[in-house]
Amino acid sequence: MTRFGPDQEDADDHPGLPRAPVVVLVEPQLGENIGMVARAMGNFGWRRLRLVKPRDGWPNAKAGAAASGAVHVVEGAELFDSLEAALADLSLVFVTSARKHDLAKSVVGPVDAARRSVTFETAGEGRVGYVFGREAWGLTNDEVTLCDDILTLPVDPTYASLNIAQAVLLCAYEWREAALLRQGHQDELTRLPIATAERSPLADKRAMQGLFDHLEGLLDTSGFFRPPEKREGMIRNLRTLFQRARLNEQEVRTLRGVFSSLDRAHERPKTG
Amino acid sequence: MTRFGPDQEDADDHPGLPRAPVVVLVEPQLGENIGMVARAMGNFGWRRLRLVKPRDGWPNAKAGAAASGAVHVVEGAELFDSLEAALADLSLVFVTSARKHDLAKSVVGPVDAARRSVTFETAGEGRVGYVFGREAWGLTNDEVTLCDDILTLPVDPTYASLNIAQAVLLCAYEWREAALLRQGHQDELTRLPIATAERSPLADKRAMQGLFDHLEGLLDTSGFFRPPEKREGMIRNLRTLFQRARLNEQEVRTLRGVFSSLDRAHERPKTG
Repeated sequence: MTRFGPDQEDADDHPGLPRAPVVVLVEPQLGENIGMVARAMGNFGWRRLRLVKPRDGWPNAKAGAAASGAVHVVEGAELFDSLEAALADLSLVFVTSARKHDLAKSVVGPVDAARRSVTFETAGEGRVGYVFGREAWGLTNDEVTLCDDILTLPVDPTYASLNIAQAVLLCAYEWREAALLRQGHQDELTRLPIATAERSPLADKRAMQGLFDHLEGLLDTSGFFRPPEKREGMIRNLRTLFQRARLNEQEVRTLRGVFSSLDRAHERPKTG
Repeated sequence: MTRFGPDQEDADDHPGLPRAPVVVLVEPQLGENIGMVARAMGNFGWRRLRLVKPRDGWPNAKAGAAASGAVHVVEGAELFDSLEAALADLSLVFVTSARKHDLAKSVVGPVDAARRSVTFETAGEGRVGYVFGREAWGLTNDEVTLCDDILTLPVDPTYASLNIAQAVLLCAYEWREAALLRQGHQDELTRLPIATAERSPLADKRAMQGLFDHLEGLLDTSGFFRPPEKREGMIRNLRTLFQRARLNEQEVRTLRGVFSSLDRAHERPKTG
């Protein structure tokens, strides 16, 4: 095994999250694909990449270019001569496949695999790996046999061909979700990198009633509510509309200014 | 608006699933990216793609090449001169962003957006769209303002740069999960395209006891359990190991054959 770049073992995992799984690519062909895998890993805090006999050798300049900001993943990649060697220090290995193998192995999805990876690492049971096969034809049955469970992705069965980087992306995405869930981030909102912008406080019902009184008074004067027996229903509809907008205090003030301005329009001297 | 290819409106959505959202790409630059977006859509049963002023014109041969099997998505793409026009017939629009916008809009994640899309379509409230910005710099505040909610993806905040096709992939993946969940596929396993291979029935405890008796009898004869006071613990460990393997009936027969064969090895004449 040849390691390129510094030994980052356990050095800079995401604080508070369990150790992320190792990604193993078997005989990847295109440098661009290796780079895009690295980028997908970086997006979700994974960084340990192992390559078994990459077709075009290693290092590969195209991989670095396609990795975008995730060059640390490419530079830290480890090179192996066989899948056996790449898996030697791993204790729980998922192997991705879209094909049915006639092997007595469980088939799991990305959510189940992610949760089991997180539980496994948290309990200190060993290291977890995810194996991805060749772009063109995947893995042999002998290679699949080296792994524990078959991981398949819930794609539309009529068009199941996932790019290798996209398969890695979904696995890493679900792993990060599972890791953050375990940390207590039950709510999707707390797992997002940006939050709803701070808003002026929502208008309370007194402010809304002031808005309605204001508007309805103006409309009574302008003769809007005709015929009079429809007034009640028209008011209900207007109030419903503004309620639904969940206005904040500033917006109520703005609207009252709008209404006043419209109401006074006839007072202004006509131009021209 | 120019539509390329046949009008597939509502023609061949996935049977039983709600109508899938429309994907709107604003001024996409690379044909390869458009093709990879189409491929990601195809993987999860989405197929309505709209392009607002693609930089290199349209049709684009590189898009078709990168779409792999999802050429139907590329060929059915619709072309628009403005984002307003592309959104005109949509009623609920999510706009993806990794940046914080100082707009009074809710920020949601892909799971929430997917569930709301499915509920919205199922209730017949209108069509749903997901807007993705330019590769290099996203969208202007005016463009974001045209949409309803901001959708952000739960990436590692220290490396948040998602490729546009990967952003589409995660949105479509979560949409399909939500749509299948609503159909009653509560269990992840029922949402996967392949299943665990049929196995010979698991061995029952009588078969396992037969295996243990067989093995332990052979080992007693061979003198394996030494010193005798350790026998009980050694047997417990062996039984635990084979129990954990969750052997099927055929595997029990195979193992018994293995043990018998090993036991008789000394009976064979030595070769050479």
